[in-house]
Parts: sequence; C-alpha cells; structure tokens
Amino acid sequence: MADDAGMPIPDRAAIEAAARRLSGQAIVTPLLSSPMLDARIGRRILVKAESLQRTGSFKFRGALNTLLSLDTETRQRGVVAFSSGNHAQGVAAAAQRLGIPATIVMPADAPAIKTANTRAYGATVVPYDRHRESREAIAERIAREQQAALIPPFDDPRVIAGQGTVGLEIARQSQELGCTLDAVVAPCSGGGLVGGIALALAGARPAIRIYAAEPEGFDDMRRSLAAGHRVANASTVQSICDCLLAPMPGALPFAIAQRHLAGSLTVSDDDVRHAMAVAFTDLKLVLEPGGAAALAAVLAGELDDAAQYVAVVVSGGNVDREMFESALDRGAK
Amino acid sequence: MADDAGMPIPDRAAIEAAARRLSGQAIVTPLLSSPMLDARIGRRILVKAESLQRTGSFKFRGALNTLLSLDTETRQRGVVAFSSGNHAQGVAAAAQRLGIPATIVMPADAPAIKTANTRAYGATVVPYDRHRESREAIAERIAREQQAALIPPFDDPRVIAGQGTVGLEIARQSQELGCTLDAVVAPCSGGGLVGGIALALAGARPAIRIYAAEPEGFDDMRRSLAAGHRVANASTVQSICDCLLAPMPGALPFAIAQRHLAGSLTVSDDDVRHAMAVAFTDLKLVLEPGGAAALAAVLAGELDDAAQYVAVVVSGGNVDREMFESALDRGAK
Repeated sequence: MADDAGMPIPDRAAIEAAARRLSGQAIVTPLLSSPMLDARIGRRILVKAESLQRTGSFKFRGALNTLLSLDTETRQRGVVAFSSGNHAQGVAAAAQRLGIPATIVMPADAPAIKTANTRAYGATVVPYDRHRESREAIAERIAREQQAALIPPFDDPRVIAGQGTVGLEIARQSQELGCTLDAVVAPCSGGGLVGGIALALAGARPAIRIYAAEPEGFDDMRRSLAAGHRVANASTVQSICDCLLAPMPGALPFAIAQRHLAGSLTVSDDDVRHAMAVAFTDLKLVLEPGGAAALAAVLAGELDDAAQYVAVVVSGGNVDREMFESALDRGAK
Repeated sequence: MADDAGMPIPDRAAIEAAARRLSGQAIVTPLLSSPMLDARIGRRILVKAESLQRTGSFKFRGALNTLLSLDTETRQRGVVAFSSGNHAQGVAAAAQRLGIPATIVMPADAPAIKTANTRAYGATVVPYDRHRESREAIAERIAREQQAALIPPFDDPRVIAGQGTVGLEIARQSQELGCTLDAVVAPCSGGGLVGGIALALAGARPAIRIYAAEPEGFDDMRRSLAAGHRVANASTVQSICDCLLAPMPGALPFAIAQRHLAGSLTVSDDDVRHAMAVAFTDLKLVLEPGGAAALAAVLAGELDDAAQYVAVVVSGGNVDREMFESALDRGAK
C-alpha cells in the first residue's frame, strides 16, 4: 500500500520490528486507572501514560526508531528536525544516545522547558518565528547545507511505526487487565501517533474504534476526513495545545486515518485545562495541554455512549509551571 | 525471629507470598529515570513511582495484603484503621474491592483530597483532633464496639510484607535496566515501607545500602537507631510532610531497621518543596510532600558519594492544589 505521497503505510510487522528495536530503550509506560476518574466519566478508563516516556512524550519512540534505521554514513553527517518541542526532544535524546549530531528548528515561543531540554540533550536549537517563517523551509535548507538527514515529525513510515508501539502496548496491557477495549482516543497534530496506534490495533477482534482528539480551530483531521482530502487550519487561530498545532494532517497519517479512524473529537482550551486538573487529582500525572486532549474529549462527553472500556493516551507532560498552575486554578470544576 | 512486641518479622517468603496475592490487583509501578535528574544529582537515579499506585500511594499494597489474610467472619464484621490519609485510602479501597465495611479515624486537618477519597472508596471517616486526641484510642474503641479488625498502619507483619513488594519490584526492574544498585532510599514515618523494602533486598549481592528519609523534627528513626531503642518526636514540631508524622517508629519496623538499615537521612520543608518541583519538571510526577522526602534527601546531597546507582522511592501523590502550587513556586531553584 502507498499513500498520496508515495510512501508505504507501515504494516503490523513494521510496528513489531520497531517494538523490538525500542525494547530496553523506550519505557514501557504504565496503563493506569482510577476509580475516581471512572466515576467522573461513567466508563472504565485506562490511561496510557506516555507523559512518563523518556523526554516526557511519546515522540522519543518514533525518533529513535527512525534514527536506528539510518546507515553509518548518514549518522555521521547528522540529523535535522523541525518541531514545536516534543519531537525536538525526542530526536535530540535519540541522537544523543546514538552519538549523532542534531539540529532542531523550534518556534521562538515554544515552552521554555522544551527548548531548554532539547539543548540539554546536546542538540543545536535554531529558533524561528511561527507566524512569519516556514519551519520546513529552514529545516530543508539546513539539511541541504549540512548534508544531514531530515527526520520528519509525523509524515514518515519509520516515525509512524515507532509511535505505533504505543498501540501494541495498549493491546497487551489491557488484555493483562482483563479489559476488552471498545475504543482508544489519542491526541492528534499531524496524525503520527493516532495513525500508528490505529495500524497496531487494526484487525483486533472485536473491533476497537480509534479516535483522534484535536483542539478547536486545529481540527484539520476531522475536517479532512469529512472532506475526503487534506485541508489546512486557518493561520489565525490560537490554542494552548502548543504540541498540536500542525497546519494539516500528514499525507501518510491521513491515508491511514481514512482507512482506520472512527472519527476525530474536538476540545476547547477549557476542556483541556479541566483534563489537566483531573489528571493532577485522580492520576497524579503532570500533563501538558496537548497531552491532555484525548482525556479532555472523553471528560467532555465527546465519545459515544456505546464505548464502555476506553483507553486514553496522555501523550506528553512538558509544560511550564505557569501554564500548569493556570490549568489547575481554572480547570478545577 | 520476633521483635520487642512479640510479632514475627516477615521473611522473604512472606513478601513473595504478598507479591503473588497482589498480582493483578496492585499496579506494578514503573521505575523511571531522567537524564536531567541524573545531571542535577551527579548519580544514576531510578525513581520507583508509587505515587502512581492505586489510591495514589504504596499503602494500598500493605492494606490489601492484610485484608486478604482475614477470614470470612472477620471480613463480615469489618475493619478499622487510623491514618493521616494514605493508609486510610489504602484500607478503604482494599476493603471496597473485597466488600468489607471500613471505618477510618483521620485527622480533622488531613489534606482535603485524602478525606474526600477515603469517603469516595466507601469508608466511614471519623475525624479527630491531631493535637488533643489519641487516634489509637479512638480506633481501638471503635474496633471493640464493632468487633471489627484493627488494620495497623505499619506495625504489622502483613502490612510490612505488602510494602516489601515494592522492594521485590525494584530488584527486578533495576536488573532489567542493567543497573546494579548501590543504595535505595525510601520515605519513613512508622517504618513499614522502608522496613519491608529492606527485608526484600536483604541478602542481595553486592549488598544494597537501604536508607530511610525523614522530615526535620520527625527524625525519630534516625534518633532511635542512634539511641539503640525507640524514641519519640517532640509533639510541638511541624512539617509539611503530613504523611510522615508518626510519633515514633513501629516496634517491628524498628527491629528490622536495626538489622538492615544503613541509616536515616533528614530533610527540611524547603528540601521537600524543591524535590516536588524537580519531580514536576524532570519526571512529570505529582508528588505530595512526604512522598518526595527520599528524592529530597538525594537532591540535598545527604547520601554518601560512594552510592552511584540509587533507587529512590516516591511514595505518594495525594496533595491539594494549594500545597502543590506553593511547592512549585517556592521550590524551583
């Protein structure tokens, strides 16, 4: 199978190969639950805590899987990536582990913790103006100049296979808990995470319905699925979900979504703040706004009532103190 | 072996039996790490995240192990416990799982989240004045009146064996990570957790040094070890570590500590706030003050330099929003 862009959709074997590569390198994050959370929502909720993954988000999985696929010469020349901050840390930490030089193009207004950590993992950070410059263009220029390999944030079969290992773990861990899942909800920016999970769980019996969760104004996956082709977000919208601001779905994730997603759920900034406050109280997890989007969707009642056993991916925890406290203060209800 | 109080010290077999009983009931909490944290401390730190345990603290382990040991008649009459809040939730949640009525004697000034959750798990909460009343006396009176079984917070071989399962998991998980541990540090109130861990790891080769961590003014384990007999804390001292305020070590935990502890490290409220802020930033974990005491001790440089591979138990995450935000605001440094 190939998508619009001509890249192959990774199959289950590619995701299983990624899982073997990541074994002992990435954390098998826990699948948590809370009777308090279940009571709030009126369903059984299993929370896949990727906020506890190395670098504080799932992005480490796809980044490491991709870097492990590079040959020796490419590794020596180094890698380049563009990212709002989580892919940045994922690539930087994976590159550091493998001794590969890394340059990351990041928004000048990214959360301070994301920029600081990316530098702490040894990468060179190149800031850009999110409203006026093209990060893709900057990254491609650097890649050309340095003959470095560009590591895309989501539109790449190796990246998607890496993120798909989250789905394999959800399948195994929910089975160990004796839960037959009705649905899985995961945050969606370019669609690499939810796409990878959908591929990992495709063919499960009974069928599991996979949903994306997106911020209001950045519901490009929802609108693209409705339109039957990829459509972009307006450049004027704002969201506190700094990790979910990709302009449109990736070509490959969109092709996967058309085949395997049950839909996409949309959440407001207030929904997200509430979910962050609930994760603090019920789960003892620090979540960043975008990392809480899927939990926010389920808490907001966006999921149809038939889904009683639901896995929710909380995808990241890289949040500055001020934003977190504001979410706790405003999100408790 | 029997301690001063005549109760047997649980052996490794008792801890392994507890692990089998808890299998599938308690969460196997992850052993996390962070390059940022390692860099701060200059050692390799493995963080056993018991804040992610059911009920938000390790106490669920000992409570469930004890309740599972009760016969049918005793279960029908119900259980009573006294607790600052984490043992309360542990007993309440374990009792709810087994359909056992539970009454919990709790300080009137316990964190709101602890009292609310204990009630949410279906227990009857009896508040008392921490400065003027004896919780032991109240709990014993209720146990007598209701013919209910008193579930002690730490001075009980079944409770200690349950908490000791944390030690078994640390041993297995650190081995899977390829780490040979030099030391383990765990918070200490009555000593059930650190005692159980010490028993679980006793006889490890090479020997692992086990340390308690206690708040300033509540360093009764440290002073008891120095005196060679149990000594109490002054009743006038204060600490933000609401879960570590037991008046003196339990008889059984003290007997274990004399045989197996390398010492006890003391931390200030400011050390604890800093550790809570570091756990937020580096680990994405919500910790309560007492739950952060062992991490605080290691961050404060209390551990001798020889210990390069150190497991730190973060034992609970039941903290109200105001206290957490105050720790983030004052603890960042």
